[in-house]
Amino acid sequence: MNTIRILVTGGTFDKEYDELAGSLFFQDTHVPEMLRLGRSCLKAEIRTLMMVDSLDMSDADRANILEHCRACPCERILVTHGTDRMEVTARLLGQSNLGKTIVLTGAMVPYKFGSSDGLFNLGAALAFVQVLPHGVYVAMNGRALPWDKVRKNRKTGMFEEIEA
Amino acid sequence: MNTIRILVTGGTFDKEYDELAGSLFFQDTHVPEMLRLGRSCLKAEIRTLMMVDSLDMSDADRANILEHCRACPCERILVTHGTDRMEVTARLLGQSNLGKTIVLTGAMVPYKFGSSDGLFNLGAALAFVQVLPHGVYVAMNGRALPWDKVRKNRKTGMFEEIEA
Amino acid sequence: MNTIRILVTGGTFDKEYDELAGSLFFQDTHVPEMLRLGRSCLKAEIRTLMMVDSLDMSDADRANILEHCRACPCERILVTHGTDRMEVTARLLGQSNLGKTIVLTGAMVPYKFGSSDGLFNLGAALAFVQVLPHGVYVAMNGRALPWDKVRKNRKTGMFEEIEA
Amino acid sequence: MNTIRILVTGGTFDKEYDELAGSLFFQDTHVPEMLRLGRSCLKAEIRTLMMVDSLDMSDADRANILEHCRACPCERILVTHGTDRMEVTARLLGQSNLGKTIVLTGAMVPYKFGSSDGLFNLGAALAFVQVLPHGVYVAMNGRALPWDKVRKNRKTGMFEEIEA
Repeated sequence: MNTIRILVTGGTFDKEYDELAGSLFFQDTHVPEMLRLGRSCLKAEIRTLMMVDSLDMSDADRANILEHCRACPCERILVTHGTDRMEVTARLLGQSNLGKTIVLTGAMVPYKFGSSDGLFNLGAALAFVQVLPHGVYVAMNGRALPWDKVRKNRKTGMFEEIEA
Repeated sequence: MNTIRILVTGGTFDKEYDELAGSLFFQDTHVPEMLRLGRSCLKAEIRTLMMVDSLDMSDADRANILEHCRACPCERILVTHGTDRMEVTARLLGQSNLGKTIVLTGAMVPYKFGSSDGLFNLGAALAFVQVLPHGVYVAMNGRALPWDKVRKNRKTGMFEEIEA
Repeated sequence: MNTIRILVTGGTFDKEYDELAGSLFFQDTHVPEMLRLGRSCLKAEIRTLMMVDSLDMSDADRANILEHCRACPCERILVTHGTDRMEVTARLLGQSNLGKTIVLTGAMVPYKFGSSDGLFNLGAALAFVQVLPHGVYVAMNGRALPWDKVRKNRKTGMFEEIEA
Repeated sequence: MNTIRILVTGGTFDKEYDELAGSLFFQDTHVPEMLRLGRSCLKAEIRTLMMVDSLDMSDADRANILEHCRACPCERILVTHGTDRMEVTARLLGQSNLGKTIVLTGAMVPYKFGSSDGLFNLGAALAFVQVLPHGVYVAMNGRALPWDKVRKNRKTGMFEEIEA
């Protein structure tokens, strides 16, 4: 079993409720807790690169993610990411031709909310990253779409397949 | 996008708490609710074949599952199943060489319990069933193991890879 | 059994996550759902007066709440309220000497978050409103404090007893 | 603020799911976790007397509970209890005239299940135990009924008021 590198960048996935301020914020990632809940036996190494809303992600942040994907000895990489700019980061990674299987996933509702899609998405993304050929994919809504064929529909919140 | 057939057989996945009797029982399957929670956009047809604990599954029940897998026009089939005898049903399906991709999954903790692995497993199983080549697999603990190489460890509750 | 009037004004209690905007907002109140979950057999009439964060509550809003408390035929009234200005509304109601038992409660974490105190608070508030003598109280943190002896500690988020 | 003694005896409240055996069992009580969730600031001392289904509670068990209520220096006592025989223990405590306020509560659905009434009941019971006069009460379904006027309806699962 090969090790999967999990790069955490934040996103809705990891938003917490700040009970004093009454707003959402980032603390630590929930990915380790989610892996325990899923009783995962995969060899996964988790690195938190940043904890940001993808709307606040800068080009420098994206370059940082790219650099980690490139430098990482693992051939299979999962990136947790805010959904609003997931396709932008996917495009950068895809155009860089890293010769690895990279899957981006996230959540529409914070993991800590009862109605979160996060655990479902993480399970799917971990499965896809193990078996898909080299390339960059967005895993949302139960499927994996190639980086050059995916767009988030802002009205429905669903990731759609588009012409490359 | 091809349609995925989901065959529901019960298992811990779908156990509910009977508040009057104070025990666990089966009512309806939670799979449709789980797909909504996961915001799945997959074309899935759900058929409930039975709602049983896999310890109570008979040879006739297993023959029934096999027959449905054979007759089903879909090439990709997901079977939700109790974990205790998942490997037995997987073996029957695997030895039958149906020329389809069949993935069995389930849960160690009922979906309705806060600590359930069900949503994670369903996400992973749906991903695996879309991309794995023809064959029969058990998808638990974040990975998919071929039907002839899988065994549930009764002490740890984890599915292990064994020699075929 | 006398009818309890429940006046809904919003507050953290009822905040939902808007998955498209990625922010918290108000939709419908969760109070009826919470009463079902608590298997309440109380006779309760729920009226939604407004759905606002108490930081956004105006003097006119508070006058509206007061008027409803005064006009209501029920002697026992529960008001769900944002925690940040709960003491302000409690003071207005308390100084008005309505000759009724009025209990204000709310939540530090939205009901839909797994870690919400909302259900606990609602159970406590409903108990207090049934048995406390006429007066106005804030029910938070497991106890009921009179309107003229309560203050929210902004640093801890706890409601403290102060000198009247 | 006077200290409340909480006597834990088990019941549905505290049932956990044993993922290896596939059945419900008792481990530790969830009461401390529930008090944290409810952000309780009450002074409460928790003693676990037993962890049993009330159907399995013996006369010796009930005598044990009575003895603890009698010997306890606190005047206000909360007893968590299985619902099936809650009225039996309440009767024993009530007939003993201890000159204290004793409230029994429990849950129809285990706390760890998403649909549990436990947190609501605990909030209500803690409120009742602080303000009701000396006597023994069952706090379920949002209200407190005196020990000699309460019966669980086996068909509906609700606690009803009966003639003393």
